[in-house]
Amino acid sequence: MKIVIVNGSARKKGRTGIASRHFEKSYGTELIDLSQLKLPIFNGEEDQYHLEEVKNLKEKIGQADGIILASPEYHSGMSGALKNALDFLGSQQFAHKPLALLAVSGGGKGGINTLNNMRIVARGLYANVIPRQLVLDPDCFDYENDSLLPEADALAKQLMDELSRYIKINNLLKEQER
Amino acid sequence: MKIVIVNGSARKKGRTGIASRHFEKSYGTELIDLSQLKLPIFNGEEDQYHLEEVKNLKEKIGQADGIILASPEYHSGMSGALKNALDFLGSQQFAHKPLALLAVSGGGKGGINTLNNMRIVARGLYANVIPRQLVLDPDCFDYENDSLLPEADALAKQLMDELSRYIKINNLLKEQER
Repeated sequence: MKIVIVNGSARKKGRTGIASRHFEKSYGTELIDLSQLKLPIFNGEEDQYHLEEVKNLKEKIGQADGIILASPEYHSGMSGALKNALDFLGSQQFAHKPLALLAVSGGGKGGINTLNNMRIVARGLYANVIPRQLVLDPDCFDYENDSLLPEADALAKQLMDELSRYIKINNLLKEQER
Repeated sequence: MKIVIVNGSARKKGRTGIASRHFEKSYGTELIDLSQLKLPIFNGEEDQYHLEEVKNLKEKIGQADGIILASPEYHSGMSGALKNALDFLGSQQFAHKPLALLAVSGGGKGGINTLNNMRIVARGLYANVIPRQLVLDPDCFDYENDSLLPEADALAKQLMDELSRYIKINNLLKEQER
């Protein structure tokens, strides 16, 4: 079962990156890191589809059994970096694939608008967005150890468990349809 | 009264570009064209704030009395290009400024999710998003003349009129508060 997490922050030291690496280290998810992967701004032109970065992104998402989108909240929405990466992709990569949402916020009521934004966009990509979702506030992080604190990790585990359950169902369905 | 329209499409031949240029030609709005302006992906690092493109963008939006955000609909949301441009900006540029929304869609029910996405993000920027909004479908365009057809132009004019009314009110209020 191959799960990919997309770190939707281009910040080198962002908390979304810490959360994404936590999933990589604790749950073996494959990391697509938008602070490392240099994508151009999507302009729909042919030559962009031949870029190694774009081909790799498509291939990794396309081969995944399930996906986690992780985004910081910028101005009540997902990062432009993440939306721009999604603009290169389509239902070919996402259709019916279980997908979990994770927002990283500054606290208070933050993160919810970003989750709703991502949910509608992921539906637009024809993914199967699972009901469970997660907001991580600043006090969820173990900054020294580049990871999540135990309480937040318990929520991360629940997200992984539910995503895995949906992937099992999806894989079962795909087998039956063969 | 200075109104700026942001063409949120990076496509050289996109319909959002046609619509934006129509506003420029017919209503004298200043055009910020994301198919021309080359912004990097926002990563929060100091050096990005010193880029000419970023300083210009901030200055133009900051000096505007009112703003129109124009976006194509990509996967049920605004373009990554537009969201990325907004990620460089903040309430310093937008607070209480009248702002109108325009989505360009492929037809059917398209455009509404993008308008709602932009409305929530523009509220996050603390703009005063006006009630009237507009979706332009493929049959709204006069492709030969790089403009809108008369019926769509009538709707564009209504959007401009309402935006201008809100700008007048805002400018009056600012004067009274001085």
